[in-house]
Amino acid sequence: MERVFNFSAGPSTMPESVLKTAAAEMLNYKGTGMSVMEMSHRSKVFIEIADNTKALLKEIMNIPDNYKVLFLQGGAWTQFGMVPLNLMTNSKKADFMDTGNWAAEAIKEAGRFGTVNIAASSKDSNYDHIPQLDPKKFDPNADYFHITSNNTIYGTRMTDNWPDTGNVPVVCDMSSNILSEVYDVSKFGLIYAGAQKNMGPSGVTVVIIRDDLLTRTPDNLPTMMKYTIHAEKDSMHNTPPTYALYLAGLVYQWIKDLGGVSAMQKINEEKAKIIYDAIDNSSMFKGTVAKKDRSLMNITFVTGDKDLDEKFAKEAEKQGMPNLKGYRTVGGMRASVYNAMPIEGAKALADFMKKFEMENK
Amino acid sequence: MERVFNFSAGPSTMPESVLKTAAAEMLNYKGTGMSVMEMSHRSKVFIEIADNTKALLKEIMNIPDNYKVLFLQGGAWTQFGMVPLNLMTNSKKADFMDTGNWAAEAIKEAGRFGTVNIAASSKDSNYDHIPQLDPKKFDPNADYFHITSNNTIYGTRMTDNWPDTGNVPVVCDMSSNILSEVYDVSKFGLIYAGAQKNMGPSGVTVVIIRDDLLTRTPDNLPTMMKYTIHAEKDSMHNTPPTYALYLAGLVYQWIKDLGGVSAMQKINEEKAKIIYDAIDNSSMFKGTVAKKDRSLMNITFVTGDKDLDEKFAKEAEKQGMPNLKGYRTVGGMRASVYNAMPIEGAKALADFMKKFEMENK
Repeated sequence: MERVFNFSAGPSTMPESVLKTAAAEMLNYKGTGMSVMEMSHRSKVFIEIADNTKALLKEIMNIPDNYKVLFLQGGAWTQFGMVPLNLMTNSKKADFMDTGNWAAEAIKEAGRFGTVNIAASSKDSNYDHIPQLDPKKFDPNADYFHITSNNTIYGTRMTDNWPDTGNVPVVCDMSSNILSEVYDVSKFGLIYAGAQKNMGPSGVTVVIIRDDLLTRTPDNLPTMMKYTIHAEKDSMHNTPPTYALYLAGLVYQWIKDLGGVSAMQKINEEKAKIIYDAIDNSSMFKGTVAKKDRSLMNITFVTGDKDLDEKFAKEAEKQGMPNLKGYRTVGGMRASVYNAMPIEGAKALADFMKKFEMENK
Repeated sequence: MERVFNFSAGPSTMPESVLKTAAAEMLNYKGTGMSVMEMSHRSKVFIEIADNTKALLKEIMNIPDNYKVLFLQGGAWTQFGMVPLNLMTNSKKADFMDTGNWAAEAIKEAGRFGTVNIAASSKDSNYDHIPQLDPKKFDPNADYFHITSNNTIYGTRMTDNWPDTGNVPVVCDMSSNILSEVYDVSKFGLIYAGAQKNMGPSGVTVVIIRDDLLTRTPDNLPTMMKYTIHAEKDSMHNTPPTYALYLAGLVYQWIKDLGGVSAMQKINEEKAKIIYDAIDNSSMFKGTVAKKDRSLMNITFVTGDKDLDEKFAKEAEKQGMPNLKGYRTVGGMRASVYNAMPIEGAKALADFMKKFEMENK
């Protein structure tokens, strides 16, 4: 059985040891005589799995006690709606950084329920950098300030340029780089992330929300759209996606066993450096974004020749490195190297880039 | 490795062959070098899985071409909101049959967005039968008529007593008995069902909606709550729960290989008869619902003695038959014998009931 180095942007590669555990436990979880996916979500053994999953996430992210951790369904797209519906309820205004495709979708969805203010944008340069912030463009009455910590499509990430918003809570879409580097949760009002990049399979969404923000939910929302309900019921108002939760727990344990998020970050920096060095030392490949804003998770690069780009992705796939084709709005290549991508994958890609350049001069 | 007969009401037992396939394909799906859960939902191989899953469901349910089949997230609870938000938009009124706990929750949620008319209810007798219908109590201007085909908690199901609603579309929560017996889809306007009883793991919800009902969705709904968006995008507006979809496809194939839903129904009738006969031939156990309305999926019975009920469930668990304890509002026992419960499980339970009665006279 041969595994590939899968550079998919999401859903994406999982730790091999997690998949092996899942396969081994598929028919009989720890002597219960059943699969985790066959368990009642109210059963003692599943409640233990769910509690352990939450405890592990709190531990590895160092989440303070005044935050609730929710495991919901519907992905980041559902959060694009839930965030404004639950939080944009006082001034009915919110600030946004427009740093990529998903930020733009979040803005559009919020704009249907209130007034959005684009505090900064890099749209005019095809989102090739994180824009500078000018606090004069912040609305001091905004109900929240929305950012995207990593931009999956364009390959940028927030580094030194975080908004200082005073009392306005920062809401962060962390879908594509949660758990990839150390973040201070206490600086955020709300963090959300779909699981399918760094936390497991698609179908479960993590929401980390500061307690005081749970007072804003209006009564007239559909029940399932209310953070308050999910917080009161500890994510068990309805049947949660039990198997996805179990897998997320296995991934959290894997990160913990590696030494936690800070150790993960070092590995990610090492992996990214291998590929960025290959780009910077090449005369064929060019990065597509500002160096200081480079993502550790999604590495975008081009040759400048569409046919050559296509040839690269095709030949890489034949070498066991699929899913390197870039998103259509950027073109070229995108190597998604989430937590679960082993360092050998980054090395194999860098080696292949050198070989390809030699052979296609 | 020993598997139990798991009588859980949901999430619930899966076909063993499906779990074996899932385990075998966990690290490498058909030579792709990756797990299904690691695939981009836009990849050719995953699109094939998703298309095949949908085609199989259309085939085994014989779904007419003027229906859209959607695979969504959020379970039946999300549908309790989506149905009224999308369909209760003309007269803003809807008719309901109040036949159990989940029907009552659906009514409560719909009542937050319009006017609900309880056309029939068996609440006064603790939902121990399906109530008679009186067409004079139907509202001819209702936007839809909502029913629940099987009541998981109480152990009743619709049999001969279907509402004749004329032009008012029937919406059916089929969560706990979809694919367990043959239904004529053309008699329904919309069918919804969480997967975690008869279709796979929790985390995916099937919605089958007649095309003409897709014209009612108001513009101001959150994007993810709109049937229209999911129909337009063929359930790929956002990342679907890919692994749950794959498992649902395996379950559909398993039903097809058994001979389809009509063959499944025969097996279910046989399984249910074994247990109902054990109840009816006993002087210790009594069924809790009207015989003509008995569920094929959830079989509820009591001894009349709470301590004895508890002893029964505990001893059955020791014999490899867990999760027989009844829901608190009914008490006693509930044996959930969904499609994937083998006939040997029904026999083992019936045998144990006889043995228990002998030993506890």
